[in-house]
Amino acid sequence: MGADLHLDLAVPSGRGVRAALTDALRTAVRTGRLAPGTPLPSSRVLARDLGLARATVVDAYAELAAEGWLAARQGGATRVAPSAPTPGDASRPATVSAGPGVVHDLRPGRPDTSVFPRAAWAQAVRRALATAPDAALDYGDPAGHPQLRAALVSYLARVRGVRARPEQVVVAGGATEALRLLGGVLTERTGAGLAVEEHGLPVHRRMLDGLGRPTVVLAVDDEGACTDTLPALSAASGARAVLLTPAHQFPVGVPLAPARRTAAVAWAREVDGFVVEDDYDGEFRYDRRPVGALQGLDPERVVHLGTASKALAPGLRLGWMVLPEPLARSVTSRAPGSVGVVDQLALADLLDSGGYDRQVRTARRRYRRRREELAGVLEARAPAVRVVGHPAGLHALLDLPPGTEAEVVERARRRGIAVEGLATFRHPDALARRDGLVVGFATPSASAWSGAVTALGDLLAEIG
Amino acid sequence: MGADLHLDLAVPSGRGVRAALTDALRTAVRTGRLAPGTPLPSSRVLARDLGLARATVVDAYAELAAEGWLAARQGGATRVAPSAPTPGDASRPATVSAGPGVVHDLRPGRPDTSVFPRAAWAQAVRRALATAPDAALDYGDPAGHPQLRAALVSYLARVRGVRARPEQVVVAGGATEALRLLGGVLTERTGAGLAVEEHGLPVHRRMLDGLGRPTVVLAVDDEGACTDTLPALSAASGARAVLLTPAHQFPVGVPLAPARRTAAVAWAREVDGFVVEDDYDGEFRYDRRPVGALQGLDPERVVHLGTASKALAPGLRLGWMVLPEPLARSVTSRAPGSVGVVDQLALADLLDSGGYDRQVRTARRRYRRRREELAGVLEARAPAVRVVGHPAGLHALLDLPPGTEAEVVERARRRGIAVEGLATFRHPDALARRDGLVVGFATPSASAWSGAVTALGDLLAEIG
Repeated sequence: MGADLHLDLAVPSGRGVRAALTDALRTAVRTGRLAPGTPLPSSRVLARDLGLARATVVDAYAELAAEGWLAARQGGATRVAPSAPTPGDASRPATVSAGPGVVHDLRPGRPDTSVFPRAAWAQAVRRALATAPDAALDYGDPAGHPQLRAALVSYLARVRGVRARPEQVVVAGGATEALRLLGGVLTERTGAGLAVEEHGLPVHRRMLDGLGRPTVVLAVDDEGACTDTLPALSAASGARAVLLTPAHQFPVGVPLAPARRTAAVAWAREVDGFVVEDDYDGEFRYDRRPVGALQGLDPERVVHLGTASKALAPGLRLGWMVLPEPLARSVTSRAPGSVGVVDQLALADLLDSGGYDRQVRTARRRYRRRREELAGVLEARAPAVRVVGHPAGLHALLDLPPGTEAEVVERARRRGIAVEGLATFRHPDALARRDGLVVGFATPSASAWSGAVTALGDLLAEIG
Repeated sequence: MGADLHLDLAVPSGRGVRAALTDALRTAVRTGRLAPGTPLPSSRVLARDLGLARATVVDAYAELAAEGWLAARQGGATRVAPSAPTPGDASRPATVSAGPGVVHDLRPGRPDTSVFPRAAWAQAVRRALATAPDAALDYGDPAGHPQLRAALVSYLARVRGVRARPEQVVVAGGATEALRLLGGVLTERTGAGLAVEEHGLPVHRRMLDGLGRPTVVLAVDDEGACTDTLPALSAASGARAVLLTPAHQFPVGVPLAPARRTAAVAWAREVDGFVVEDDYDGEFRYDRRPVGALQGLDPERVVHLGTASKALAPGLRLGWMVLPEPLARSVTSRAPGSVGVVDQLALADLLDSGGYDRQVRTARRRYRRRREELAGVLEARAPAVRVVGHPAGLHALLDLPPGTEAEVVERARRRGIAVEGLATFRHPDALARRDGLVVGFATPSASAWSGAVTALGDLLAEIG
């Protein structure tokens, strides 16, 4: 046993050290500081650490074992007895779940975590640890390990048409963390809040609002964000930066129309501002007309945000941004450099070896099939319910008849279907009052999918 | 080949798709978007993705190979030719190093990263991935995974005398990131800056100063921080929180005297304030009198900060804090939850299995021997240079004759010895003008240590 143990030994005059040691151990067990089953150091080790004779410790252990506080096994470590009471041993909080009563989890924004390539990731970790120099394990570049930044540049250029050099890449603990760093720099630089799409991720909006410069609203229609209105919006509000989801508007699901793409970039140039492109699911397109990253149009004006949360798993907390060099320097000066280097090197390994591409293809096949099955069920059961947008991503917006959204969401809840209404994603200042259901068809595991899509079809059949 | 490739195919009327495809590929290679050696998708895959006939892609690949842009190997993937020019392929930034001209790296605050248990970590990752439920890979609790928080509670109780329940633990991407979150909550709650030790980590001080409430200075002497002056300090400045290094003052190297420990906690109770205990190297004591965590004296008033940077590696970016429950809730509401779950579960595995204890003991043996060797070299070569403080930690302060520090540091620099003077760690408002050299004896690798300590002995022999 190499276990370590801290004990405060108070030895009042007239008492022996053995009594003091048994008291200290008894108190530690009684108060729960030493939990049931905790292994204790060997008598030899504890005696050395405390400067006691080994026999003193052996005697103390024996006394406490006789009293039932400790359990000693022949040839094994002495442990705290399993039955000792532990006032401090509170129940562990449950794993974050969809909530009580949820049978079918169709919340958007989550991949099916059962697809995560556990073996490939473990192998990538092993390879990274086998080849990394010792210096990689030291404090590193707060912008991220050079190997990962180079791998991202190559991957994003190849797959998304991103144009960048490694100096422009900053690695962060997830896309939201990246947006926090970037938002701080942009609000300081522009002296104003960011414009955000009227339907978007509440966690992003709240985070940006928390930076002290409230966000302003940009309308969204079936051609994506109405970037043609940006000049008027910035004239009214002072906003010189906008957060967009060009590849696949979240949550409406449409790609940004070509003229709107051009308009966004032209506006950024005109006002000396920036477009932030949240490319949260850019690899997941199911038809044959991929939309390249907006960043490729103007790398000096567009910041590209990406994440491994959809292709691998949100739990990895791996995100990145590609920035114009002056912004990259500002963001790096604020970056905590809080992303573990083993994960960084494992991701670089997967990107360089083609393992990431393979995983994207595997997940893409699965999610494309699910989207087709969802569309098929709706066509058969609820033909009036239209699926909005291109076949892409991990979620779909279902248009609902005006005024029915709240009722449908409530009926879903009563049947144990976790699904979001469009209202969840609506900016408080939005004018739009569209009704819709945002369905995360990637969320269920393989075994749960079929039941979930059937339950949703049953529900929608009643209204459509 | 599962590689993915983004191409914008503009097909003007009157030109064929094959010409458009070769143009697009040629441009991607010429501009460096596709780097030399990059594997291209197979012709079958690219044809499907672009909606082209496979023969079109085969012809385009052949044409570009003939022109020298691509290299095709019999039976292998088509790749960008190794010799293609790549304007964007900037040199990767070098690994963060001690700086140019450094031969002997004795900077404090770093472990010998060659001790990192690579195989044990890879195994812990493998075990964690083999047993974690799918839900663990989803977005998780921003305070950290329950399994790691429970493992930390048990470990810290056993080894450091910390008294806590898992709800009081928040995992962060390193101790500095933990202090950033905590500092925000404390300055908001107390409406004042924190008191910090007059010698301490500049990165911590600057980060706290950046929160908008400047830090105030607490004197340090050979009994540690002068916590008996806290009442006067807070009366003058309004400070109601203090950052201390009780186990081993950084960088002076002395433990906080018992009366000073009591005084700190009594003050926090009196002013309704908090003590932040930075326990950065608490496991590394080499004599027989361990000092328990200050947190154990009053878990309602003391926040305990810890890190795996010293026992494992800084590159993992794993830190934690143990807080009174109201503070834990406030900090969690700001926590980005940016720590990867695989690292979290691997650390929990090492803590629970005893692997972490074993690693601490291995590192401790190594660093204890080094500290003894450092003391031995000084005794033999520079008997006038005194090593301050208890045998503990990964660094030692060497007292220098008054007025000599700058000269000694400069002479060290000229000989390629990277070492810090006490001035590096001095708060701008500090009154102390002590001269000293802060030596990180853990930093060199095993093979570099002997040369480094000899070079330092040679240097100090000249002054002592």
